[in-house]
Amino acid sequence: MEKIDRYRHCIKEIISRHSTPSSYGDTEVQQIFDTEHDHYQLVHAGWHDKERIYGCTLHLDIKDGIIWIQYDGTEIGIADELAELGVPKEDIVLAYHPPYKRPYTGFGPEQMR
Amino acid sequence: MEKIDRYRHCIKEIISRHSTPSSYGDTEVQQIFDTEHDHYQLVHAGWHDKERIYGCTLHLDIKDGIIWIQYDGTEIGIADELAELGVPKEDIVLAYHPPYKRPYTGFGPEQMR
Repeated sequence: MEKIDRYRHCIKEIISRHSTPSSYGDTEVQQIFDTEHDHYQLVHAGWHDKERIYGCTLHLDIKDGIIWIQYDGTEIGIADELAELGVPKEDIVLAYHPPYKRPYTGFGPEQMR
Repeated sequence: MEKIDRYRHCIKEIISRHSTPSSYGDTEVQQIFDTEHDHYQLVHAGWHDKERIYGCTLHLDIKDGIIWIQYDGTEIGIADELAELGVPKEDIVLAYHPPYKRPYTGFGPEQMR
């Protein structure tokens, strides 16, 4: 499998893993896969009584062969999950950390360290 | 053009209209189009000095031939823009309003009013 296809497969696997149905009111769990522009999300949307439930739990992009984690609302941290699935740490950027911190995360391409 | 294709076209037109480049730091404006599951978003992601910029400005879905506006962060209100593009008001649900309020919005199918 080509590298990018493998990365797409890993991202979808991680998003599926975290897509447990919400027990919180009438809430949809949406897996959003834009394979053309390589944007991938997990979003919750719905209502719990009079309270609006809306938010992104996960957002990952693929840019120039690298996975960018834009948002990670999980407790476990999906960067480690991606690494466990075989994605090299240098191909994962923790975009939710500011650029000056990224060299110390243990993730990201060599030139960012 | 089939109704759903026309609605997809209108949604993409609205999202493109609101995709003005951010003048706020190093921020990407992402158009996210999942045409398989019919989820459409406009998302800003980036950094402004040490501040993280991340958020969804628009989120629309198509479900059973109806457009659901899950999130609308514009000032103008995109429901009216969709109506101006020819989408009947009964085919637009303001999902960000609670179900009990929707009958009074002037939008949504007859059975929701």
